[in-house]
Amino acid sequence: MEHECGTPVEQARVRAGMTVNELVSEMGKAGAYNAGSLFKAAAILEEMLSDESTVKFFGLAGAMVPGGMGGIVEDLIRDGYIDVLVSTGANLTHDVIEAIGCRHYHGSEMCDDVELFEEEINRIYDVYLPSQAFISFEEFMQETFGEIEDGTTISIAAMCRHIGERLDSGILAAAAEANIPVYCPALQDSMIGLQYWLFNQTHKVTVDAFGDMNRMLDACFTAERAGALLVGGGVPKNYIFQSMLMTPKGFEYAVQLTGDRPDLGGLSGATLDEAKSWGKVTGKAGAQTVYGDATITLPLLIAAVRERIGR
Amino acid sequence: MEHECGTPVEQARVRAGMTVNELVSEMGKAGAYNAGSLFKAAAILEEMLSDESTVKFFGLAGAMVPGGMGGIVEDLIRDGYIDVLVSTGANLTHDVIEAIGCRHYHGSEMCDDVELFEEEINRIYDVYLPSQAFISFEEFMQETFGEIEDGTTISIAAMCRHIGERLDSGILAAAAEANIPVYCPALQDSMIGLQYWLFNQTHKVTVDAFGDMNRMLDACFTAERAGALLVGGGVPKNYIFQSMLMTPKGFEYAVQLTGDRPDLGGLSGATLDEAKSWGKVTGKAGAQTVYGDATITLPLLIAAVRERIGR
Amino acid sequence: MEHECGTPVEQARVRAGMTVNELVSEMGKAGAYNAGSLFKAAAILEEMLSDESTVKFFGLAGAMVPGGMGGIVEDLIRDGYIDVLVSTGANLTHDVIEAIGCRHYHGSEMCDDVELFEEEINRIYDVYLPSQAFISFEEFMQETFGEIEDGTTISIAAMCRHIGERLDSGILAAAAEANIPVYCPALQDSMIGLQYWLFNQTHKVTVDAFGDMNRMLDACFTAERAGALLVGGGVPKNYIFQSMLMTPKGFEYAVQLTGDRPDLGGLSGATLDEAKSWGKVTGKAGAQTVYGDATITLPLLIAAVRERIGR
Amino acid sequence: MEHECGTPVEQARVRAGMTVNELVSEMGKAGAYNAGSLFKAAAILEEMLSDESTVKFFGLAGAMVPGGMGGIVEDLIRDGYIDVLVSTGANLTHDVIEAIGCRHYHGSEMCDDVELFEEEINRIYDVYLPSQAFISFEEFMQETFGEIEDGTTISIAAMCRHIGERLDSGILAAAAEANIPVYCPALQDSMIGLQYWLFNQTHKVTVDAFGDMNRMLDACFTAERAGALLVGGGVPKNYIFQSMLMTPKGFEYAVQLTGDRPDLGGLSGATLDEAKSWGKVTGKAGAQTVYGDATITLPLLIAAVRERIGR
Repeated sequence: MEHECGTPVEQARVRAGMTVNELVSEMGKAGAYNAGSLFKAAAILEEMLSDESTVKFFGLAGAMVPGGMGGIVEDLIRDGYIDVLVSTGANLTHDVIEAIGCRHYHGSEMCDDVELFEEEINRIYDVYLPSQAFISFEEFMQETFGEIEDGTTISIAAMCRHIGERLDSGILAAAAEANIPVYCPALQDSMIGLQYWLFNQTHKVTVDAFGDMNRMLDACFTAERAGALLVGGGVPKNYIFQSMLMTPKGFEYAVQLTGDRPDLGGLSGATLDEAKSWGKVTGKAGAQTVYGDATITLPLLIAAVRERIGR
Repeated sequence: MEHECGTPVEQARVRAGMTVNELVSEMGKAGAYNAGSLFKAAAILEEMLSDESTVKFFGLAGAMVPGGMGGIVEDLIRDGYIDVLVSTGANLTHDVIEAIGCRHYHGSEMCDDVELFEEEINRIYDVYLPSQAFISFEEFMQETFGEIEDGTTISIAAMCRHIGERLDSGILAAAAEANIPVYCPALQDSMIGLQYWLFNQTHKVTVDAFGDMNRMLDACFTAERAGALLVGGGVPKNYIFQSMLMTPKGFEYAVQLTGDRPDLGGLSGATLDEAKSWGKVTGKAGAQTVYGDATITLPLLIAAVRERIGR
Repeated sequence: MEHECGTPVEQARVRAGMTVNELVSEMGKAGAYNAGSLFKAAAILEEMLSDESTVKFFGLAGAMVPGGMGGIVEDLIRDGYIDVLVSTGANLTHDVIEAIGCRHYHGSEMCDDVELFEEEINRIYDVYLPSQAFISFEEFMQETFGEIEDGTTISIAAMCRHIGERLDSGILAAAAEANIPVYCPALQDSMIGLQYWLFNQTHKVTVDAFGDMNRMLDACFTAERAGALLVGGGVPKNYIFQSMLMTPKGFEYAVQLTGDRPDLGGLSGATLDEAKSWGKVTGKAGAQTVYGDATITLPLLIAAVRERIGR
Repeated sequence: MEHECGTPVEQARVRAGMTVNELVSEMGKAGAYNAGSLFKAAAILEEMLSDESTVKFFGLAGAMVPGGMGGIVEDLIRDGYIDVLVSTGANLTHDVIEAIGCRHYHGSEMCDDVELFEEEINRIYDVYLPSQAFISFEEFMQETFGEIEDGTTISIAAMCRHIGERLDSGILAAAAEANIPVYCPALQDSMIGLQYWLFNQTHKVTVDAFGDMNRMLDACFTAERAGALLVGGGVPKNYIFQSMLMTPKGFEYAVQLTGDRPDLGGLSGATLDEAKSWGKVTGKAGAQTVYGDATITLPLLIAAVRERIGR
């Protein structure tokens, strides 16, 4: 192959009062390393979110809700930028906790965790969550599960919908209102799952692990085009990508924000090029990974793209 | 608190022909950074694996089987060092692929993934897996699922057991022979899951997402002591730790090998101290994280501990 | 110690057209992980840059100029926000290359480096630099060195000043105009160093390795207050910090943007708390590290702080 | 290009009492991710260290001596496996501290650094160094510098040699005995440098920053073949590589152990392929990077290679 030098690197300039997209444009002129990747990701995401014919998948992994990123996801749902959400159980658990009025608090990672335990404070890096929250959470979950008729068999998305309909704010509430599915293949691996287990000691509701798969795969089969915005990796990234494997198609847009690295072999850090070898992402797809902390790259990316789209 | 200087750092010495544990002991004399952590982890794991009264949990995340680490896990099971295995669906999928005689191959991450796709080679960093393997895999899985009576409701561990009983080698086969449970909360998030979906288009077998939870929690409730060896994070790490939350106990031994970092907030990189604030790990537990690529730290750790234990 | 829960985590909200500091404020409300760190760093840097009585040190490591971050440093110098600059030789080399009209170009890290070599293109991750640039660079450097009188003994900062006075744009030019010193302890470890070696084959100019140390230490001794903004680690970080060791003082402001991690033991990833044990940073200092790619965090931080300061 | 599947991935097996090279061979059979890289690195290093016609360069960056890795470097020098050593000033400082009988101690990174400061303990991640050591260090350094005749101009390697000749153990002592040069381009950026500055307040010895460059470049010009083992990146890596740029040759063997990553653009994490585009490493060179903590990968690699070579 012949290697072309592209456009010259421009030295980025920043000034007081510039907008987020103006900043991201400066990063694009500089265009190197992850700043360049972020700019490319913004271009891909702008096109993807503006494309009516594209079914928009969103993968949510990592402790994003305790880290205050849930609001951005909630707003994306409310504004019609997400058609299918796949999340970890933990993010949904913390979403419920916030929706029922409990809060996460700013703390510090420099602390004595044994003392924190005695003080009944649970830590997520530098975020503190008092155990008290789980008492209100249990009350809410047991009451919510109690409204499911005994003897029923439901899917995980149906259960997420059932929960969301009983909340006024947050991701699950927004998804229920917007009538978009929330898939959580490992729901049992979360506090919601533990609450369900507790509930099921005295009730009989069966959760069909595969109850959502037809609808998820149909979304891939029927999509004229498909795009994915992936925050972190884990189950959400793989579940979104593998669903496309059953179709002759692949994702035509893919943006991944991850703090992992490819050289460890794990999926969470795997490049989107690797996904092309599997056919999960098409060869001609607009695909870009941005390495870094998603609590920085997600707000930066979404604010820039919203400015470009104008809403 | 008063800070004590511990023993002096000894300059590590290495010589031709030294055994793995001799090397790890030298790392312990040096005792700094992740080499020091590995030495501490070996001491904890030696005690944990030697302790008859300890129920031993093993969490398996990351692309460990394609990376050739499955044999170490298989041997740990066969030698009685694992009582409960929690895995990602991907590791089980690749375990089946190897067990039915298909192979993963050495490749390179410096490649053209679009060409790989055309050549029907799927890439996992620098490991290549020809698509051909998935044809044999489909045959085996469909035949295996076909032996489950229609109308049944089974749990994920029961399905893993059913698969393992039909294999001669690998993790699932060893677990079935050793009669230890293999939990995989997100089984649908894997090729095994996709094969099951395919099977279920024409059959009716219900997989109860929560069908394993009683047995998993019982293992925690009834354990005199509990220890966990966690390779990677993800669902396996959280599922093992959360199960202890429902008991008044916590893990008394915990060793984590991860390539993630704590400052991103995600569970996979979270310290074991953080787990103490939740009560997942006890305040007095022997707990150590080693940061690095588990394909290096796992063999190093297990070879050293086996040398110490003598088998 | 008693652990206090701080203010609640607010879910960050982003909207079209928001300014960079509005975005950083949202990150501050969320306040977790590195987004929270960036917000804290902005508060420290705002105070540091607004404090007339503070001598402002800037450490520049990593391939920042090829990555298009040199302009931000140049502007900080021109606007009086840097009193002492410590840089790697590589950043100064690439600054000269741009200042004499040669350019770096956008390329790709997915390439054949052996072919690139044959095409005389040098790669810095995804930035390409044609070898042609080094021919113009050699001409300029040899001419510039030629203007130093034979038999002289000069310091590294004096040589950097000498070079900067012959340039119209970039970091060295701005520093010369602003009359601030540029220290580069490892100048010989750069293309500038190699050019000097070539020059010295036929001339006799002695570069006194320690010729700048008095002035550097005086800056620390005489500073009423001292603050440091560190991009990357390496020699610049250590040289800035160690200079304070010879005084009874320590840095009262310190912000570090790094992609390294503490657990490897190296200085580049070391926390600023570690620096407190040495007395390099005072116990009461405002000190914050932000982990991530500086091509994202530096523009974000500087744009936000400039908006706060109003220029 | 046509993609070939290489040999099959073998599942690694570990057993009690195996030697380090037997373990590394198992990693090679698995052959994936960084375990595979380590195996490839061992093959390259075995060939390089066995090749009489190869000049062997060693780059030493990162806090390796405080981390107990200095002994491995000292032994490599004593056994004739290093011809040219390039180090950071910090490693040489800590080498002197140990050689004069002061010690580093095992501590913990979970500590109060402000208290450590009051207790006069300096921290390097989880290693503690009492300030007392710097008093003995100052005595030794001042006495050693005092033996240099006033008015002299010396090079950095000459100063390192001068120091090494006055020590009985450690890297500098071994290098002096073996009569191999130790280059330290940024010597002033270290405690040795600060001590020299103190000395020079009352004496006049000039350190010629470029005094070593002829000899360093000659080593490259005259080498029939050249190989480099790089621990960490920083100045040592670049100084070793750039010296080859002035010759028509390139390194034919290169092994790099680093904890950095390529996507941040910095040299320390840059791949060795990137070095090929510059011609620092030849297109046909045996070149391998292993990502991870060098306190684990260095002992593992050297023990395995020594076992292969037999000494």
